[in-house]
Amino acid sequence: MARVRNWKVLYEGIVAGDRVKMGMAFSLIESNKPGDKKEANRLINACVRAKTKRSLRIGVTGSPGVGKSSVIEKLGLEAIERRHKVAVLAVDPSSSISGGSILGDKTRMLELSSSPRAFIRPSAAGKTLGGVSRATREAIAICEAAGYDLILVETVGVGQSEISVYNMTDMFVFLVLPGAGDELQGIKRGIVEMADLVVVNKADGERGNLADQSAKDYRNALHLLAAKTSGWRARVLKHSIEQKDTTTALLDKIAEFWSFIEEREIQQKRRGQQQMTWFEELLKSSLLEKVNALLSGEELKLEELKSEVYRSEISPGTAVDQLIEKIELKIAK
Amino acid sequence: MARVRNWKVLYEGIVAGDRVKMGMAFSLIESNKPGDKKEANRLINACVRAKTKRSLRIGVTGSPGVGKSSVIEKLGLEAIERRHKVAVLAVDPSSSISGGSILGDKTRMLELSSSPRAFIRPSAAGKTLGGVSRATREAIAICEAAGYDLILVETVGVGQSEISVYNMTDMFVFLVLPGAGDELQGIKRGIVEMADLVVVNKADGERGNLADQSAKDYRNALHLLAAKTSGWRARVLKHSIEQKDTTTALLDKIAEFWSFIEEREIQQKRRGQQQMTWFEELLKSSLLEKVNALLSGEELKLEELKSEVYRSEISPGTAVDQLIEKIELKIAK
Repeated sequence: MARVRNWKVLYEGIVAGDRVKMGMAFSLIESNKPGDKKEANRLINACVRAKTKRSLRIGVTGSPGVGKSSVIEKLGLEAIERRHKVAVLAVDPSSSISGGSILGDKTRMLELSSSPRAFIRPSAAGKTLGGVSRATREAIAICEAAGYDLILVETVGVGQSEISVYNMTDMFVFLVLPGAGDELQGIKRGIVEMADLVVVNKADGERGNLADQSAKDYRNALHLLAAKTSGWRARVLKHSIEQKDTTTALLDKIAEFWSFIEEREIQQKRRGQQQMTWFEELLKSSLLEKVNALLSGEELKLEELKSEVYRSEISPGTAVDQLIEKIELKIAK
Repeated sequence: MARVRNWKVLYEGIVAGDRVKMGMAFSLIESNKPGDKKEANRLINACVRAKTKRSLRIGVTGSPGVGKSSVIEKLGLEAIERRHKVAVLAVDPSSSISGGSILGDKTRMLELSSSPRAFIRPSAAGKTLGGVSRATREAIAICEAAGYDLILVETVGVGQSEISVYNMTDMFVFLVLPGAGDELQGIKRGIVEMADLVVVNKADGERGNLADQSAKDYRNALHLLAAKTSGWRARVLKHSIEQKDTTTALLDKIAEFWSFIEEREIQQKRRGQQQMTWFEELLKSSLLEKVNALLSGEELKLEELKSEVYRSEISPGTAVDQLIEKIELKIAK
């Protein structure tokens, strides 16, 4: 199958819901070739501008083994019953090293992935979290242009990846296991503060009592936190993939949150701000790239200067002044 | 008293231990006048290069009311008894708004401030945390050049200020009060992970039992955390300003830590890395300043572009590409 790189062809395929073209579009945005980058930018620009129906972007996080994939599958299937179109994406900064620890095995969502109303994309390629984040943001734009209205972005709790997902979604769901150790984890990492919904998963069988206790602990912990600026009060739900009514309750709560932020125009503002943040981050990193290209040349003797800084032979301020004086910036005519 | 702005005069005063010149140097580094900035950079460069005796930089954090100032005073007095010279600085990002919530009232360290072997400097002026951090890093360089070998950097637990202090010190001390609520606070904000020493303060009188429990809780929490890369195992100590032996024990533990990182050459490496980070941060912000000056002009129509990004009329990537293409960077001959 020849790869299509023309953005217009891809865009038309996407809005028509052509899944093969969607896959090609993903390859294009993850490509590092300079020519591809230009086409990818045009494509994403068209996707961002596309006026599609309302959508909800949900970040899902939790430690490995908490059951993220199976919860997402159950949630996705329930959402499809309610006539949603469901996209599942992932931000996994470890993927460049390990080949991806989440969504890598599509068979974990066998039932969901076989649905024509679901689109599952394993973790984006990328050497840095920044690269993975950018690709995921762009993947969201593609999925929405293709009419997917429930976007689930999965992440593992590694360093900054959760903050990154938080900054590209409307809602943040934190999955935990029944038991004491996990609480502390989520609390110490500040995840609970970001969560709109805490889901105590695997709340069945022998873990029933533990799950009740965990839910109580989280409710207490949430009470200690300041209210969210949105006015939404974070909730704690128990969930088991073996009890369909808990999945129904979960999706109901998600729908309640969605109405809440829509009615108050919170979603719209938050997305506008997220776009601005994305823009500013890109601008900074693009400028730094440009600067790095300049700095990597021999003329400035940067490596020499860096070792002097390391050995305290020059102060950082003076080193920077020496560099900055030499760099000229201007607007091209 | 005329302000001296000549860096050489100030530098010579500093290395001679002239406290009036030190004060003038602080004013110089906090000044925003372009001419002052140049002199300040020369001064700091000389201070960084100065080969002074070994020193330990200690970050001290904890919620308001935990007793930071009185612990620092007792610790400082004990250190002076051991022939150290003690400098107390502060990073307080709220100072630009409130006039400073820490160290603002020097009378809180009356005894310490009257010692000729102590130098206390209230929070640096600065509109941003970045500005305050820079001034504090430079203040450390000045104090060390003046022969102060125990540098205590106090901060309140506001947002990023703790991370900022962590990144400019060799050791991080976290003060807590006996009682349950505070534990959670420290844990959720990730402070405990940064701490080399947790001090349960005001461990006296009726709070004795509570303090024992808190110390136990912190020891448990610390056990759950991964070991520090330095190999140092974080400790928990109880402290009361009314019991001199607890201050002695605290300073002993600090001395133990100091030996630990010196013997393993951890301190030296960590400082080298901190200098590099400082350099890279300054380089980025200086470049961004330069870029912002360019962007604030009319030619690029940045504000217009930003509102388009906000309204999703253009994708962040395309907006950045449009800007980047127009910006020319080169090395001045």
